[in-house]
Amino acid sequence: MSARRPSERAPDDEGPRIDPLLEIREKHKGLRPGDVRVKIVRPFEAEFERGVEGSLVASERTVLDRSGWTATLRGIRTVLIGRPISSFHEQHERLTKVKALAIFSSDNISSSAYATEEMMRILVLAGIASFSLVMPITLVIALILAIVATSYRQTIKAYPNGASSYIVASDNLGTFAGLVAAAALLIDYVLTVAVSVSAGVAAVTSIAPSLFDARVELAIGIVFLLMIGNLRGIRESGSIFMAPTYLYIFAIAGIIGWGLIRALVLHDLGTFNAPPSWVLAEQANATGVLSLFLILRAFSSGAAALTGVEAVSDGVPAFKPPEWRNARTTLTWAAIIFGSLFIGISFLASAIKVVPDPYEHQTILSLITRQVAGDGVYFWVVQIATTLILALAANTSFADFPRLSSFLARDGFMPRQFGFRGERLAFTTGIIALSLLATLLLYVFNASVTALIPLYTLGVFVAFTLSQTGMVVRWWRRRDPGWRFSLPINALGALTTAVIAVIVAATKFTSGAWVVIIMAPLLIALMVAIRSHYRMVDAALALERIPPGKEVASEPLVIIPVARLDRPARQAIAFANSISPHPTAVHIANDPRDAAEMRERWSEWAGQTELVVVESPYRALIGPLLRYMDALQAQDPRRPIVVVLSEFVPRHWWEQLLHNQTSLRLKLRLFGRRNTIVADVPYHLPGPEGKAGHP
Amino acid sequence: MSARRPSERAPDDEGPRIDPLLEIREKHKGLRPGDVRVKIVRPFEAEFERGVEGSLVASERTVLDRSGWTATLRGIRTVLIGRPISSFHEQHERLTKVKALAIFSSDNISSSAYATEEMMRILVLAGIASFSLVMPITLVIALILAIVATSYRQTIKAYPNGASSYIVASDNLGTFAGLVAAAALLIDYVLTVAVSVSAGVAAVTSIAPSLFDARVELAIGIVFLLMIGNLRGIRESGSIFMAPTYLYIFAIAGIIGWGLIRALVLHDLGTFNAPPSWVLAEQANATGVLSLFLILRAFSSGAAALTGVEAVSDGVPAFKPPEWRNARTTLTWAAIIFGSLFIGISFLASAIKVVPDPYEHQTILSLITRQVAGDGVYFWVVQIATTLILALAANTSFADFPRLSSFLARDGFMPRQFGFRGERLAFTTGIIALSLLATLLLYVFNASVTALIPLYTLGVFVAFTLSQTGMVVRWWRRRDPGWRFSLPINALGALTTAVIAVIVAATKFTSGAWVVIIMAPLLIALMVAIRSHYRMVDAALALERIPPGKEVASEPLVIIPVARLDRPARQAIAFANSISPHPTAVHIANDPRDAAEMRERWSEWAGQTELVVVESPYRALIGPLLRYMDALQAQDPRRPIVVVLSEFVPRHWWEQLLHNQTSLRLKLRLFGRRNTIVADVPYHLPGPEGKAGHP
Repeated sequence: MSARRPSERAPDDEGPRIDPLLEIREKHKGLRPGDVRVKIVRPFEAEFERGVEGSLVASERTVLDRSGWTATLRGIRTVLIGRPISSFHEQHERLTKVKALAIFSSDNISSSAYATEEMMRILVLAGIASFSLVMPITLVIALILAIVATSYRQTIKAYPNGASSYIVASDNLGTFAGLVAAAALLIDYVLTVAVSVSAGVAAVTSIAPSLFDARVELAIGIVFLLMIGNLRGIRESGSIFMAPTYLYIFAIAGIIGWGLIRALVLHDLGTFNAPPSWVLAEQANATGVLSLFLILRAFSSGAAALTGVEAVSDGVPAFKPPEWRNARTTLTWAAIIFGSLFIGISFLASAIKVVPDPYEHQTILSLITRQVAGDGVYFWVVQIATTLILALAANTSFADFPRLSSFLARDGFMPRQFGFRGERLAFTTGIIALSLLATLLLYVFNASVTALIPLYTLGVFVAFTLSQTGMVVRWWRRRDPGWRFSLPINALGALTTAVIAVIVAATKFTSGAWVVIIMAPLLIALMVAIRSHYRMVDAALALERIPPGKEVASEPLVIIPVARLDRPARQAIAFANSISPHPTAVHIANDPRDAAEMRERWSEWAGQTELVVVESPYRALIGPLLRYMDALQAQDPRRPIVVVLSEFVPRHWWEQLLHNQTSLRLKLRLFGRRNTIVADVPYHLPGPEGKAGHP
Repeated sequence: MSARRPSERAPDDEGPRIDPLLEIREKHKGLRPGDVRVKIVRPFEAEFERGVEGSLVASERTVLDRSGWTATLRGIRTVLIGRPISSFHEQHERLTKVKALAIFSSDNISSSAYATEEMMRILVLAGIASFSLVMPITLVIALILAIVATSYRQTIKAYPNGASSYIVASDNLGTFAGLVAAAALLIDYVLTVAVSVSAGVAAVTSIAPSLFDARVELAIGIVFLLMIGNLRGIRESGSIFMAPTYLYIFAIAGIIGWGLIRALVLHDLGTFNAPPSWVLAEQANATGVLSLFLILRAFSSGAAALTGVEAVSDGVPAFKPPEWRNARTTLTWAAIIFGSLFIGISFLASAIKVVPDPYEHQTILSLITRQVAGDGVYFWVVQIATTLILALAANTSFADFPRLSSFLARDGFMPRQFGFRGERLAFTTGIIALSLLATLLLYVFNASVTALIPLYTLGVFVAFTLSQTGMVVRWWRRRDPGWRFSLPINALGALTTAVIAVIVAATKFTSGAWVVIIMAPLLIALMVAIRSHYRMVDAALALERIPPGKEVASEPLVIIPVARLDRPARQAIAFANSISPHPTAVHIANDPRDAAEMRERWSEWAGQTELVVVESPYRALIGPLLRYMDALQAQDPRRPIVVVLSEFVPRHWWEQLLHNQTSLRLKLRLFGRRNTIVADVPYHLPGPEGKAGHP
């Protein structure tokens, strides 16, 4: 990254040796120093370069403000999110595979910290004997993971510009399917942030219970840090988040490796001794009946492990080129790593015969770690790495949510702001919106994982299904090379995830999935409404014919509302006289005495500009003025009315509160009036910053 | 009150028989129908009348909006606070003595509901035997009441236009003393609302304990009702609040009368049997030592009964003429009524030997009532009347706070808005500010009287002292007729209230009075800062010399930021061409492709208007535009720059969210720029309301 800094350029700007602008052009555009045309734009030299065909190109300096409160804001902004990045540098802000793995798979990999446990917490209802199902269910989920990942490998290749489920579903199944996928994903991204951050905070508070009362504040603080990190731009956020992901991977791999050696080679691993109180508590809750429904519920809980698999395919354009190939490789590695950790943890859980803590004070993972590696430094490393990766899994959504929003904004389904890139090339609006929504969820659900988790996973499997069904349709229609190989894979993926979606909806409906089933249609309706609004407006605003030559509007009727005879009023009147031969000043008087006084002073002051005095016995200003304008307009309906407002600009923003809010209210009302133009003439006090205020 | 309604006028407006304007003039101004000059202003006829010297006088119709969301707001407003009232009707909005007594003395009279009890709650610390001091302390306070009321009678006569302590102290002791009085009073008014409303709600919740959890909401709801009532204007609020005050007065007078008959004539009143648990609880807390400090504390608590005495003298101008005489009479009656109730209650409390409930479930007043009149309907009447008058005592502050604020605003110590009268002749800003501050206090202190009461009374006695000291100085300086009689009375009043202020500060300092002692100087500093700001600005804005003839500003440089080539842009360009011979369009392009496309389309579209394209690789819009303007300005520093902004006006306000916020941000930044005028050219969709949007 080498956005040029003004400090680096400063010597150039002042240096007497060489024309600075020419030197810059030489460096950047490869033009010859002899070019004279540039000289024409003297005043622009410091801050603009010449682009093609003589247009100006703004330098970084035009963005950095230099005085007053905007400079302060800019300073805070630079500290928090860094200096602006030019679009020309965009290519460099791409991810290597190692970084992409850390960013896009932290959500998926972190689920290994709780997937086994969530399964066992359901199975325990049928008694400890049912734990023999842990390994079989884990293997089924791992098999499904392989199917889904292979399926997404096909998708990535087919959509090298980003294989978001929204795009794939829209492309192949139509707009409505795309919106269903989009709504499902948006809801799920917000939930991912809320759930992961809550789980991370819960891990912290189980180490330090004294922080429990501040868990909502802690969680919101983490969301804020994630927001800042992501506003800084994608490469920096990669650097921040690489460490915990790999720390977690290696820490857990170490436990699994050492556990396997002790179990299979040394045969000294032993089994877990559950405290008698746990056994009693679990026996009290157990029904002893292992129904199919219970197995499916356990499977649903474990299937939360599959969330996040799609992240890599959503993020294809963020990879270094060749994007699709790097993305596929990364996806394969992420799936292999996650699968290994998940199977390893489930295997050790079975081998050690661990049981979940009914009081939720300790996680299965911490019990396994303690059994394998004891209570020493390694135990703490694992706990901390777990905490960090759980919190940081939320970061995946900070890559996905803004990107999906930008797609939706581009297609007119979300407000346009979501499509604009900020100074750091990040989708600022999307990042901030996600942070606010997640903060709201954390606040409402009190940062409780238990309260949030039932809403989770459903959206992801709906999106999976739609995306892969879309791929099946695509292969069938296009018959691209290799379709005979890819179509069955995607079909298998679609079928599998559809079945899981149904299972999740059925087994989690009453405990929370219903919220998603209500929210998604509302969100879809909103998106449809937004697009129809944009379409209507675009149609109404478009210029269907190009008018010839120069168009000039009718000469405007210019009025100047005058409250007092002071310098701002004088300035406004002088301006009005400069744009119109016959402006009219209007004074709204609260009582006849005021009216008489104004009339008298006016004649000796601004005699040549016409004055109309309107007495307002109801002490209202805006109503009578608007009605006066109506009357004026009625006399000459074709001419626009220009209202010249004089406004005093205080030295400090808070002083604004001491000055009449009337003109603000007036502007709000005039904004809605047809054929009306408001010209704001600010009056600045003579100050250190520049010349006297009036022109 | 007879503000003329449009509905009444409608037949006139359409009637073909007679010139409507002439008929109106005939009715209102007594002019002959033959006057022809009026005909000149045809378009204004429906909504304006002619005032003196040909100025227009706005009718009520100019205030009542007729379409869109403003009509909705107006409808809500009319339902809540009524139709606007013309300044011409002001005279009729005055108070009779009977209404004024209800409004201005509800604060004072309502204190009888708790003054005796508060005294006893302190005395009980020295044991039940010390209750023999209740009647002596009550008589001392009643004597002080007589002194203060007599003293204020002098003040009312000397200040027939309103004898606020602020005015009296400023006039005679200087600005600083005035501000001290003002700060003390403002704080106390807010506390009066919070304390009275909390006490009222506490009375409700002791009848219906199930409402206890909602007490903050209830209290805030009452404040809201008071706000609405007062925004309706003073006469209506008088009508609303008359009933409870007189109900309370007659209910308590009945209890006292019947109690006296039973005690002195029938001798069947008996004494109160305190439950054994109360006696034990009181003995546990009692020290048995009756120190002077304890007696003074009891006196301080009882002295809360004197708050509100000044309300009548503050409100002199609200009385029907002759204002000062009516106000004096009202003050005398209020003092006599309150004194009688207070002495009567204390007498019965002593006669019955009642003791306060240590658990605060029942008030002394309710215990007395039950003893005298039993547990029947009358008991409920007294309880409800007490609840209502306590809640409504807050209303006194709704008369006083806005009035004092308006005096301070007139003198430049508070923002000017506090000095403006709303459509109903009430000081809208003051009423709303008081409501918000009281709501804040209720929220922070959880609507707890116990938490709020120690902050109370100190401010009032400080203001009393300053006001009466001011009167002493005034009599001494002016030697008006009767000064030899009035001066000693005011001197005695000043001395008495000064002693009480010291006693209150000393005995209540640690339990809350310190808050007031910190807040008051901060408030005074703020008021001084506000005035010095206004003075500085007025001096800077004043026109010291009157320029001769017509002033015309330099021809402005006109630029039109153009984002897209659409109808709004076309309209803005046409307008710019109508006010300037050479406007320049500026397009900020995010990338070179966009820039090239704009250049190409421009040449075939608006060829004769100059276009400058600025490429912005940092994707910022505002920075490059501002720097471009700087460069332009540097070429010609004397000419102002007019920025013509085209803005699309959506049909509904919420659609605004879907359209770019950029122009709003741009306007905010340009507002602070010297020599810059922003002309807002709104583009309206062609709609049912009027003609097509562009001029």
